[in-house]
Amino acid sequence: MAGDTRERILAAAGRLLREKGFRGTGLSEIIARSGAPRGSIYFHFPEGKDQIVREAMLGEVERISEILLALTRESPGPVEAMRAYVAGAAEELASSNYLFGCPVAPVILDLPDPDSALAEACREAVDEWCGIYVEGLVAAGVSPSRAESLATMAVSAVEGALLLSRARRDVTPLYQVADELEVLVAGALADPVEVGGVRR
Amino acid sequence: MAGDTRERILAAAGRLLREKGFRGTGLSEIIARSGAPRGSIYFHFPEGKDQIVREAMLGEVERISEILLALTRESPGPVEAMRAYVAGAAEELASSNYLFGCPVAPVILDLPDPDSALAEACREAVDEWCGIYVEGLVAAGVSPSRAESLATMAVSAVEGALLLSRARRDVTPLYQVADELEVLVAGALADPVEVGGVRR
Repeated sequence: MAGDTRERILAAAGRLLREKGFRGTGLSEIIARSGAPRGSIYFHFPEGKDQIVREAMLGEVERISEILLALTRESPGPVEAMRAYVAGAAEELASSNYLFGCPVAPVILDLPDPDSALAEACREAVDEWCGIYVEGLVAAGVSPSRAESLATMAVSAVEGALLLSRARRDVTPLYQVADELEVLVAGALADPVEVGGVRR
Repeated sequence: MAGDTRERILAAAGRLLREKGFRGTGLSEIIARSGAPRGSIYFHFPEGKDQIVREAMLGEVERISEILLALTRESPGPVEAMRAYVAGAAEELASSNYLFGCPVAPVILDLPDPDSALAEACREAVDEWCGIYVEGLVAAGVSPSRAESLATMAVSAVEGALLLSRARRDVTPLYQVADELEVLVAGALADPVEVGGVRR
């Protein structure tokens, strides 16, 4: 039962975080949404809101990492993995009435203290996702340095397209970004030119 | 003098918005930072915080649109315009101790009501920036439909790279994204293939 309460609190905090960001996620609303007794909050999370938000965010990050990793390892190639990931994100965003985007983006933007454990968790999340894309790209034959740049592009483009899709209440930006990522990855596989070189 | 107070309030709100988002921008802090008398807030902004945030955001959006438009019209081509814009954004982010990113992103993520005038202002900002990129790409010879997709990619990638750069406290993601955008735009100019077509 104690485990249940803890999970309910984290689930409620995870949802609030994605909907309202770090500053919009208050203890009172976490309590109200989770249905947990007020006293149980500090029993399960002695550091209070920062700890709850951190653990809730890490839970969401892990869920996304598992999806990305499974798609990377099970898809025919990186393009199919990216398309499948984008399609899932678009579905989740649209079916949540454009509330459920990235769980890390609102924390990055609202972060009060760049030296906090929460800020470190944001950095690790971003690095982890980029690392999964790098793995898939290198396995498909892209050079490690180009894979780093392409992976950053993929994570950035999806993050940005989630913002644009949310603003427009329309998932078209996510699919446009997937199309452009396909052009980039197909080009990198066909002709492994290094970027940031001569033309810079 | 009244004009000065109004401008000081908007400048303080614009900074707070970019640093802390919609929910993190409180009237008390706007007053404290602007040095404006409390009573002057409702004199200048009868709708209160929503109006201040909307006008402050629109001021920042207009500033960015003017920069983008000037770069688009004065650069040799869209690649140079994008590189120059990214370099400016990277400089602004790094010199603000990684606080000054996009003024619209935090509002999109924190937005309480999708039907509000503020939500409409976010949509218009995103559309305006995409439109400026489309103009530059079409002028350089990219087909209108590919230009739409590339413009969405450019705005999304820069938005996302601002998030990643802020999380990492390092502007490398912005430059990696600029490199990848260059590959895309150079490819679109050299070989005007339609994306989202056959391979999809």
